[in-house]
Amino acid sequence: MGAGMMGTAVCVPLADRGHDVRLIGTPLDDASVRALRTSGVHPGLGCPLPAGIRAYPVSELDDACADADAIVLGVSSAGSSWAARALGPSLAKGAQPVLMITKGLELDADGLHVLSDAFARAVAPQAPGCSPVAVCGPCIAGELARRVPTAVVLTGREPSHARLFQSWLATPYYHPRVSDDVVGVQLCAALKNAYAMGVALGQGLHERAGGVRGSVAMHNVEAALFARAILEMGRIVAALGGDAASVWGLPGSGDLTVTCNGGRTGRFGALLGRGHRAREARALLGGVTLECLDVLAVLERALAEQRLGALRAEDLPLLRLLIQLALHDAELRLDLAELFPA
Amino acid sequence: MGAGMMGTAVCVPLADRGHDVRLIGTPLDDASVRALRTSGVHPGLGCPLPAGIRAYPVSELDDACADADAIVLGVSSAGSSWAARALGPSLAKGAQPVLMITKGLELDADGLHVLSDAFARAVAPQAPGCSPVAVCGPCIAGELARRVPTAVVLTGREPSHARLFQSWLATPYYHPRVSDDVVGVQLCAALKNAYAMGVALGQGLHERAGGVRGSVAMHNVEAALFARAILEMGRIVAALGGDAASVWGLPGSGDLTVTCNGGRTGRFGALLGRGHRAREARALLGGVTLECLDVLAVLERALAEQRLGALRAEDLPLLRLLIQLALHDAELRLDLAELFPA
Repeated sequence: MGAGMMGTAVCVPLADRGHDVRLIGTPLDDASVRALRTSGVHPGLGCPLPAGIRAYPVSELDDACADADAIVLGVSSAGSSWAARALGPSLAKGAQPVLMITKGLELDADGLHVLSDAFARAVAPQAPGCSPVAVCGPCIAGELARRVPTAVVLTGREPSHARLFQSWLATPYYHPRVSDDVVGVQLCAALKNAYAMGVALGQGLHERAGGVRGSVAMHNVEAALFARAILEMGRIVAALGGDAASVWGLPGSGDLTVTCNGGRTGRFGALLGRGHRAREARALLGGVTLECLDVLAVLERALAEQRLGALRAEDLPLLRLLIQLALHDAELRLDLAELFPA
Repeated sequence: MGAGMMGTAVCVPLADRGHDVRLIGTPLDDASVRALRTSGVHPGLGCPLPAGIRAYPVSELDDACADADAIVLGVSSAGSSWAARALGPSLAKGAQPVLMITKGLELDADGLHVLSDAFARAVAPQAPGCSPVAVCGPCIAGELARRVPTAVVLTGREPSHARLFQSWLATPYYHPRVSDDVVGVQLCAALKNAYAMGVALGQGLHERAGGVRGSVAMHNVEAALFARAILEMGRIVAALGGDAASVWGLPGSGDLTVTCNGGRTGRFGALLGRGHRAREARALLGGVTLECLDVLAVLERALAEQRLGALRAEDLPLLRLLIQLALHDAELRLDLAELFPA
């Protein structure tokens, strides 16, 4: 479900393993579904897909899911409540295991929830046994679709489902590994969207100082921002009961590296680093969806409501800066002394 | 002591703070000392230094140290035993606090030692009170010499000395922070030299696949290598009693980012990634000093003698690969399935 770049790319290892793969577009994916049906090429990915993948418009959702052995959810964060409503009836009937590519964080009266838990709660009235598995870690969709070697992490409240998806997905180029750190792994996946913007600030500052990638200009600043990002991700994960090793490994440092290396969040952060305010930068990017804004908004509320364990805003100066820049249109004044309190 | 790039660069914040700075060359630094005395420009750094820095050849070591308030050690890892012998008499007389820029690891019958401890033991017969402070974290010398904002970590067995150096070094662009994780911080500083080579393998593979930086080619592999590097650094630090947060922050993820972004170790790893064997790559680099080789040799012995706590070679597959490539001239066959055991 979800014929965006990543939802489509994950069909490649599934098809290569010989599964019958039905790619269902959301209401926003009609153009991609039409292109896939006529040419077999996804417009965003730009490469042909294995013949075994068949694309369906959302109007054929119920038929496509009727005898499915599993459901893979690849909509955007903002689309996950819609997906819960759309898939509820199928899950009620089929009780299929669910794999979530979708990342995000939700905050409600009970506290902060990783998206596999939030989705499980959303479908619980219809499918009380649903316990999604999340796939996290560094994976550029265009590379997975071209079978570039990729290592990712699967995690979920039902470890047997994670092992099932591992056995269904593993190919010589796609290497899913199972982790029992359900909260830490998914926190990293959500937090990296916010912090990648912070790391990309350094790239923008570097460009503004006249440097090109690889030149001596602002690497010390870029590295300090990267380190501060991983350190704050580590503190948040630890405060909410996750494992330090998830932050060290693929879900944390691995995914942050890939996310700030390109993509929308990275371009947004780099524009802020070059001196644009958030409003200008969003206009320059033509109004694309920026998942970092949703994550930052949730984190701002979580800090205000003291939902990050014992952490306070003063423990997370980079996060505080990112919230000011991205959500409150503040002017960038980067001072490492403030980011690393003595 | 040590008129290499980093030893010279750290004189800039010291001079900017108004200290009387005497830069003493080692026997290998005569050309740099001559250049500094005639032009005020360090040949490696390529930028003028503050007038308050005076350069001395090693023959004037005793005079230059006689009334020094502190000694900063900036020789290469391989030069640290020489430096201990050369500075012993001065330290015996002056008992000055020592700041070590030099990084490294030593293994003896008692186990693995970070370099501040190894240096303290080496000078103990003459200067039993010597308790060096180490400076670690992401810092490209050419940027520090140009006053690019830089955040680093100071750590030592004598916290009051670390705070002294912090107060002597802090400038509006250079931000030293004090950590009490003496072992973890310095382990990161040494390990990052070995693991930066591993991360740079990915850059070489990317180039070999026809990609240029930023292009879609092998980012998933590069990110997996980066994550594996930080994960193994984290496991080693934890096994030897260091803090997870040192690996998350400036000494670990920050310094690894900067080290694999350029420099000799990065170029060496990238050549291996492009398919050269170590012997060829070393020849192509013209026989430069590669600190990663010393660190890998110590780690190979430490693994063989089971000196990495409960860790075994199978817990550290990337380290094992790096040892085979760099020390045993093995051919690169990168398989993410082996780096991330299921």
